[in-house]
Amino acid sequence: MTDSRAILLVQCPDRPGIVAAISSFLFRHGANIIDFEQHTSEDEGGVYFTRLEFQTERIDLPLEDLKAAFALDVAKPFAMEWRLTLAAERKRVAVLVSKHDHALLELLWTWKRGDLRADVSLVISNHQDLRASVESFGVPFVHVPNSKDARPEAEARMAELLDGKADLLVLARYMQIVSPEFVARWPRRIINIHHSFLPAFVGADPYRQAYDRGVKIVGATAHYVTAELDAGPIIEQDVGRVSHRDSVDDLKHLGRDLERRVLARAVKWHCEDRIIVHGNKTVVFS
Amino acid sequence: MTDSRAILLVQCPDRPGIVAAISSFLFRHGANIIDFEQHTSEDEGGVYFTRLEFQTERIDLPLEDLKAAFALDVAKPFAMEWRLTLAAERKRVAVLVSKHDHALLELLWTWKRGDLRADVSLVISNHQDLRASVESFGVPFVHVPNSKDARPEAEARMAELLDGKADLLVLARYMQIVSPEFVARWPRRIINIHHSFLPAFVGADPYRQAYDRGVKIVGATAHYVTAELDAGPIIEQDVGRVSHRDSVDDLKHLGRDLERRVLARAVKWHCEDRIIVHGNKTVVFS
Amino acid sequence: MTDSRAILLVQCPDRPGIVAAISSFLFRHGANIIDFEQHTSEDEGGVYFTRLEFQTERIDLPLEDLKAAFALDVAKPFAMEWRLTLAAERKRVAVLVSKHDHALLELLWTWKRGDLRADVSLVISNHQDLRASVESFGVPFVHVPNSKDARPEAEARMAELLDGKADLLVLARYMQIVSPEFVARWPRRIINIHHSFLPAFVGADPYRQAYDRGVKIVGATAHYVTAELDAGPIIEQDVGRVSHRDSVDDLKHLGRDLERRVLARAVKWHCEDRIIVHGNKTVVFS
Amino acid sequence: MTDSRAILLVQCPDRPGIVAAISSFLFRHGANIIDFEQHTSEDEGGVYFTRLEFQTERIDLPLEDLKAAFALDVAKPFAMEWRLTLAAERKRVAVLVSKHDHALLELLWTWKRGDLRADVSLVISNHQDLRASVESFGVPFVHVPNSKDARPEAEARMAELLDGKADLLVLARYMQIVSPEFVARWPRRIINIHHSFLPAFVGADPYRQAYDRGVKIVGATAHYVTAELDAGPIIEQDVGRVSHRDSVDDLKHLGRDLERRVLARAVKWHCEDRIIVHGNKTVVFS
Repeated sequence: MTDSRAILLVQCPDRPGIVAAISSFLFRHGANIIDFEQHTSEDEGGVYFTRLEFQTERIDLPLEDLKAAFALDVAKPFAMEWRLTLAAERKRVAVLVSKHDHALLELLWTWKRGDLRADVSLVISNHQDLRASVESFGVPFVHVPNSKDARPEAEARMAELLDGKADLLVLARYMQIVSPEFVARWPRRIINIHHSFLPAFVGADPYRQAYDRGVKIVGATAHYVTAELDAGPIIEQDVGRVSHRDSVDDLKHLGRDLERRVLARAVKWHCEDRIIVHGNKTVVFS
Repeated sequence: MTDSRAILLVQCPDRPGIVAAISSFLFRHGANIIDFEQHTSEDEGGVYFTRLEFQTERIDLPLEDLKAAFALDVAKPFAMEWRLTLAAERKRVAVLVSKHDHALLELLWTWKRGDLRADVSLVISNHQDLRASVESFGVPFVHVPNSKDARPEAEARMAELLDGKADLLVLARYMQIVSPEFVARWPRRIINIHHSFLPAFVGADPYRQAYDRGVKIVGATAHYVTAELDAGPIIEQDVGRVSHRDSVDDLKHLGRDLERRVLARAVKWHCEDRIIVHGNKTVVFS
Repeated sequence: MTDSRAILLVQCPDRPGIVAAISSFLFRHGANIIDFEQHTSEDEGGVYFTRLEFQTERIDLPLEDLKAAFALDVAKPFAMEWRLTLAAERKRVAVLVSKHDHALLELLWTWKRGDLRADVSLVISNHQDLRASVESFGVPFVHVPNSKDARPEAEARMAELLDGKADLLVLARYMQIVSPEFVARWPRRIINIHHSFLPAFVGADPYRQAYDRGVKIVGATAHYVTAELDAGPIIEQDVGRVSHRDSVDDLKHLGRDLERRVLARAVKWHCEDRIIVHGNKTVVFS
Repeated sequence: MTDSRAILLVQCPDRPGIVAAISSFLFRHGANIIDFEQHTSEDEGGVYFTRLEFQTERIDLPLEDLKAAFALDVAKPFAMEWRLTLAAERKRVAVLVSKHDHALLELLWTWKRGDLRADVSLVISNHQDLRASVESFGVPFVHVPNSKDARPEAEARMAELLDGKADLLVLARYMQIVSPEFVARWPRRIINIHHSFLPAFVGADPYRQAYDRGVKIVGATAHYVTAELDAGPIIEQDVGRVSHRDSVDDLKHLGRDLERRVLARAVKWHCEDRIIVHGNKTVVFS
C-alpha cells in the first residue's frame, strides 16, 4: 500500500481566517485532512504555526499544481513560510559518528525495523571501529579522519560525500567540532545529541561535570546544530535519576540509554516533518 | 479583564470538509480561533473529535443566535454532538469526602489560588472531621451520614443538596459506594479518584493488594463514575516507584501524593472543557 | 584485571546480632566489605535479608574452606539460607525467543558491550527468523519448533540443550506457554517479560486490552516464571504515557522500548546476584 | 507508643573492619540494628559513610554513656565524624518566606498530618500576606521587613528570633539574598528551594530563562545554602515536561508543583537524619 499522505507545515503572522483559508482550500481541491495541529505563540507578536496531514488520493490537481495554487491563493495573502512534503518521499539520513556505537545502532535498528520514515544512506566516521557493525546493516561506511588540525580537509571530504546526497545529518556522538562554515551548509538539518540536560554542562565531559556538581538527575538533549556550540534549538530532552552511589561510569552507562532514546525521537520527528524552528526554539507537533 | 473566550467541543462521524465547515463558519461570524485541536479515531468507523477556543469579542451575533446558526449550518449537516461554553461561565463543583483530607485540600488550594476555572460550591461528608478545614476556605460543609444501610436516605439528602446547584461532583476519597440510581443523575459529571493504577487492584484496599502482589510501581486513577464500580472512562493516571523497602503505609503515603495530583488534573481538565467521553474512553485535549 | 569480589546473599529469621556475626566473621578472615545492603521485612514475622560484596584478595582461607567455616560459624546458628558467588564466575544465559527481536537484541548488545556480568550462551527459537541476527553476535542459534501440540517434544528437546549448560533462562517475548514441569526444572531461574503493567492485563494481547480499557499509561513487567501464568515474583516494571491519539500499534511501539529496558535491567540484576525471592515477592538490592 | 529508635550517622576514611566494629559495639550493648545502609566513595581516597537505625529499648547503658563509649571504642580508632540522635527528639524547623505560599503550605500540611518528624516552630516573612494562613495552623508568624538596604537589620532581627530556637531554616521561596555572615550561623542547616534544574538557570527568574532557552523539561532543586548563591550541595531535584505550548506562566504553575514536592522531600530527609554532606555533595540514605 502506498502512503498517499502529504504533510503541510506553515508559519505566518497570526490573524483571523488562517484556519478557514487553509482548510477551505484543501477541501475545495479534494484533500481530506486527517490530522491537524496548530499553535500560536502569544508573546512574540503572535506567530501562527500549523501542521496538517491530508490524503492526496482524490485531489483534483497534480501535486505541483496544487502547490502553485496554494502559494497564490493562501500562502501569499497570509505571508506564510510553508513546506509541503509527501510522506512517501523518504528523507536520506547520513550519520556522523566516532567510536561510541549506542546512538548509531539505535538509529540503524529503528530504521531496519521500519519505524523510521527515512533511509540511513551513509555513515561517516573519523575512526574505523564501527565499520563492521554498520556494514552488517547494508549501509555504506566511509572513514574520514578528522582532528583539530585536519578539520578543513575532513570537512571538504565530507561535503563532497554529502552534498546533494543527504537530507539530514545526525551527529550520533561525533566527538569533533564542526566549523560554522560546515554548519552553514546544512541549516536546521544537522541534529546533535548532547550528553547533558542543556543548558547545564555545556562543553566537554558533561557526565564528569554532573558528577562533580552532585546532581540527582542527569539528562540528554537533542538539538539542531548552529554556529554556537551546544546552543542551537532544542528538539527533545530526557532525564534519569542518579544518586550518591553512582560513579562517573555509572552516569555514562545510564546516559547512553538516555542519549539513544532522545536522539532517536528527535530524528524520527524531523523525518516525519513534525518540527518547525522559530528563532532559537522548536515547535514539535505530536 | 473579562475572559471572552468560548470553547467548542464537537464529535461526529468523520468525513471530508468538517474543519472547513467549522472554521469558515466561525471566520464568517467574526470569531477568531485561538486554539484548535482535533483527533480522529480510526478504528471505530471513524469518529471526528475537536476542541476549539475562540474569541467572542467581535462576533456579529449574540451568542445564543450564533449557537442557533451553528446548529443549523454546521452541526446538523455533519450530525454533530456538540457543546459551546463560555470560559467566563465557571462551573460549580461539589466535593464528596470522608475523612482523608489530602485530595480535597489540593482542590481547595488550587481553587483558592485561582488555578481552577470553576468554583467549589459545597463539600459534603459522611463524617464531621473535615468541617473546620473546609469552612476556613469559606466553603459550606454539610454532614450527611452514610453507610451501607442508610444509603437511600443519604443519597436522597445529597440529591436535594446538589440537584441544580452543582455542575460536577468530585469523589475525593469518598469511602462509600454510590448507587447506580445516584450515578444516573450525573452522567459523565462525577469524577472519582481510585487509589490504584486501574484496572489493577479494583475494589477495596488497593495499596494492600499492591503490597501483597509485590509491584514495583503504584498508581492512581481519576475516572468518570459509571454504574459499574471502578470501570468508568479513565481521565488521568500517574505512578510512582516503590521497592521492597516500602510498607503498606509507605505506599499509602506515596499514594496520597499521586491521588491528589491526578484528581486535581482531571477536575481542572473537566472544568476547562477539555474532555470528550466516547464509549468507555476519554479524549483529553491538551 | 581479575575481579576478585565475592557476593554473599543471606535470608534468615530476624534477630539481634546478625550484622555483627557476619561482619566480624568476614573481618576475621581478611575479607574487606565494599558494599553492604540489608532489609528487614517487618510484617512477616521478621525476615532479615542482606547482600554484601567483599574483596577476596586477602582472605586467609581458600574460598571453599571459607564457605565451610561460614556455614558452621554463622549460617547454622542463625538458620540462614545463603549463597556465596564470585563476581568472576559469569553465569550462562540462554534466551528463548519467537519472532520479535527487540528484547533479544537489547540483551545481546548489552552483553557485547561488556555491560552484562554473564555470557549469552545459546538462543533457542520456535522460528528461524532471527537466526542471522543471533549468529552475527557469535552466539549459537537452535531452532526448536513448538506449538500447543508439540509442546512435550519441544520441551524435552530444550531440556536436553539446556540442562547443565545454562544458569538462567530468559523468555524474551517467547510466545509459547511453558509447562509447569519445564518451569520446575528452573526454579527462580526463568525470567519472563510480560508486555503489561502486571497484574493489569494478564494473558494474551495486553496492548489491545490496554487500548480497549483506555488507560493513560502502559507498562512492562519482568518477573520470575512460576507454574501460574503471569503470576510469578515481579522483578522490575516500567511505564510510559499514552493518550487517545495512540493506536494499538502505537502502544506496541512504545511498549517495545519499555519491554527491552525492563527485561535488560532484570537480567542484569539477576546476573549480579542482586535479587532474593521471598514468597511471591522480590528483594532487589541496588 | 514512644519511638525508641536512635539514628547513627558516620563518615570516616575507609578501611577494613568498620562494619564489624560498629555492629559488634552495638550488639554488645544490646542495641538491635533495624536499618543499616552504607556507601563508600571510591574516588576521593575512599570515604566510608553509614546510617544505622537501632532500637534503644534494651541498651545496657544510659544513652549519654553509650555515646561516650562509642566515641572511645569506635569513633576515635577509625577517625569518625559522627552524630547520634534519637528519633523521638523532633527538630524545630523555622521557615522563611515571602509571598508565594505553595512551598510553605506543603510543609505545614505535611507537618500537620504527622508526616514530618519535626515541628514547624516559626514562620518569618518580609511580607504580611501569609500571616492568616500560617496562624490558622497554630504556628507563630513574625513579619521582618527585608530589602537590599535593610538587610543587616533584618538579619540581626532574624538571628535574634532564631538562634537557639530552631534546628533547621527552610527558605520556602524567600525572595531575599541572605548574607554569607547569616549563612555562617547555620552551616548545613539552611535548605533552599531553587526553581530550576540546577546548575541550569542560576539566579533570577529561572522560568523566564527556561522559556527563552526553549527547554523541553523544567525542574526544581533543593540544596543546602552556602555563601555562593545557588551553588550549595544538592539534596533533591525533580523535573516535569513542558512543550512549545507552555507560556512562562504555565512553567511557573507546573514549577510550583515541582518546588513544593522537592522541598518537602528534602526537609523530611534532613529531619530524619538521612543526609550526610561531604564536600559540595550529599549522601542521601533511603
